[in-house]
Amino acid sequence: MSLVRFGVVGVGGMGAAHCQALLQGKVDRGQLTAVADTESGALEKFTALETFATGQEMVRAGVVDAVIIAVPHYFHPPIAIDALGQGLHVLVEKPIAVHKADAERMLAAERDPALVFAAMFNQRTDPVYRKIHQLIQDGTLGSLRRVNWIITDWFRPEAYYASGGWRATWKGEGGGVLLNQCPHQLDLYQWLFGMPQRVRGYCALGRYHDIEVEDDVTAYFEHADGRTGVFITSTGEAPGTNRLEVVGENGKLVYEHNKIGFTRNEIGMSEFSRTTSERFAVPPSTVEEFTFDDHGSQHLGILQNFVDAILDGAPLLAPAVEGIHSVELANAILYSSLQDHAVELPMDSAAYERCLQDLIAGSTFEKKTTPPPETDSLAASIPS
Amino acid sequence: MSLVRFGVVGVGGMGAAHCQALLQGKVDRGQLTAVADTESGALEKFTALETFATGQEMVRAGVVDAVIIAVPHYFHPPIAIDALGQGLHVLVEKPIAVHKADAERMLAAERDPALVFAAMFNQRTDPVYRKIHQLIQDGTLGSLRRVNWIITDWFRPEAYYASGGWRATWKGEGGGVLLNQCPHQLDLYQWLFGMPQRVRGYCALGRYHDIEVEDDVTAYFEHADGRTGVFITSTGEAPGTNRLEVVGENGKLVYEHNKIGFTRNEIGMSEFSRTTSERFAVPPSTVEEFTFDDHGSQHLGILQNFVDAILDGAPLLAPAVEGIHSVELANAILYSSLQDHAVELPMDSAAYERCLQDLIAGSTFEKKTTPPPETDSLAASIPS
Repeated sequence: MSLVRFGVVGVGGMGAAHCQALLQGKVDRGQLTAVADTESGALEKFTALETFATGQEMVRAGVVDAVIIAVPHYFHPPIAIDALGQGLHVLVEKPIAVHKADAERMLAAERDPALVFAAMFNQRTDPVYRKIHQLIQDGTLGSLRRVNWIITDWFRPEAYYASGGWRATWKGEGGGVLLNQCPHQLDLYQWLFGMPQRVRGYCALGRYHDIEVEDDVTAYFEHADGRTGVFITSTGEAPGTNRLEVVGENGKLVYEHNKIGFTRNEIGMSEFSRTTSERFAVPPSTVEEFTFDDHGSQHLGILQNFVDAILDGAPLLAPAVEGIHSVELANAILYSSLQDHAVELPMDSAAYERCLQDLIAGSTFEKKTTPPPETDSLAASIPS
Repeated sequence: MSLVRFGVVGVGGMGAAHCQALLQGKVDRGQLTAVADTESGALEKFTALETFATGQEMVRAGVVDAVIIAVPHYFHPPIAIDALGQGLHVLVEKPIAVHKADAERMLAAERDPALVFAAMFNQRTDPVYRKIHQLIQDGTLGSLRRVNWIITDWFRPEAYYASGGWRATWKGEGGGVLLNQCPHQLDLYQWLFGMPQRVRGYCALGRYHDIEVEDDVTAYFEHADGRTGVFITSTGEAPGTNRLEVVGENGKLVYEHNKIGFTRNEIGMSEFSRTTSERFAVPPSTVEEFTFDDHGSQHLGILQNFVDAILDGAPLLAPAVEGIHSVELANAILYSSLQDHAVELPMDSAAYERCLQDLIAGSTFEKKTTPPPETDSLAASIPS
């Protein structure tokens, strides 16, 4: 194989962007050959390609080698399981699933181990986060002590939520800002800092919007080695903040406004504390700054890496198997808040699934939507 | 009375600085006439003044109109009650007490209502915090939504803790960073944002130092109107952070590095959210910056205000009665952490006092100290 033939399932939102990238030849050795969407109107733009009403039909037509899944979150697992079962490589949009049990089912599905299964964590390509990853991995920061991430620049007005009946409902989306906007940062959190051992979430449901799910979150994480983390997000705040502070033995790193400031201790803070005889001394330090011209290759980078993994065996930047962690973090934060106590990880995925089913069953929320309806209702076509 | 005759109780630490300010004539209409300390060596510098071995003797000698209390925290209430009972004005160092029940006793003590009773919350004189106070009080920020204060620039090496046997013990100090370093910020928190309704604290005891009390804290606050707060502090981190972020309907204010940045929304965020028809729009905003040449009059400002209150009836910048709030916040954070659940405010002061007594009774911690001993052991002289 010298070329990967792509099919995109769901072309109402991000799927359309991925189609465009492929059609414009931006992905080397990647060719778009088919699209699927339950909204026939959404397919009209793609008459030069094979078009299908459902992903199920597309993956059986023998016209694609790989599938990009860009339908609403609940339908990621069934479509991925179906496509993998048909011997196709899969790239799934974030979050890989709404809840951990679904992610477990998807990851446990029988498949040819040679198939490439990746997730669209495009922010892993951002040179900012790659730099932070490197400074942690190579020991520059030293043992981590504390993380504080305020990621509230996800402002969404009511019109956003009113644009799709499935949006921000337990039944249609399974959560709010943690499921829709924050999978990136939750993935980066676990990628950079590892998974916590204990999660305490404080979620406000519909604090800022006429929705039934969370749109304002504060979470506190405790890790096995004692490091702590605070994660704050919201879709109701404007102007928002994206500020990440990471404290390690050897210094402090702050990312905000497109640059990283790193204050490096000449002597590690614990060693200095033990050895100085002065009561009010602080370790001597120097300041470095890293600036960035752009945010990297993003979606295109993930698409290209996916092709390179299929054709050349390149290591994946974001394997789907790692996507379960951001799902678990999102679930644990919400579950902790709903239960009003901390959740130990690994969390009980079956218990959370039951909790979510109860929320769906108990929902009396009437979602107000404004036309035009979005085209990402492919959901309905998926075999249940 | 045209002059206030001052007596300072405890001249080993901050008390010595207050003496110096008065002796150098920096406080208009304030005159230092007496000092008291159980360490006779500490009194040697003050042979030109009346000197006493105990505060009890000093307040009965008829040589002072007002007393500054600068002994270890546990002894603030008994000395204050004694001095007020003798008809003297009182200025007490922070925290006004170790725990809320003691603060209640002190504030409820019988005294002439004409006596001035103030607390040394010198950071209330800082133009930075006065500006923030004004922007909140005059409605510029609008209804408050969220506060995040990272105040970790309180690094203290082991040598600091080893410098006094009473330091950082349940019996000698009654707490760690919340009691010793953070009363200022906890006072500013309640002064700026009001008291929360519910407090969840996560305190690590002796995480960074060989001590039995907390030296690393994350706290989450919920207020009655839905606003939330996160407060993070530590004496183990270097380099530290002092960054305060305040989000209101009309914008966001960030204080860090000696300046305040204020992003002002042209339309309040909730109103904009309700009225825009665009799905991804954000309110238009403008950025303002406030810089500060200095941190204000600090201790001298509080001393002068105390004199002006006594002689002219000037309103107090920091009445002692308001000092109970920072004590309650510190106690609630620690109590919540020890109990591993949230604490509702107003908290049960008797329950916390019992908890603290249990900690003292159960302490098997052997504090390692290094000479020379500090002179602030006046504590021992206080009538029990």
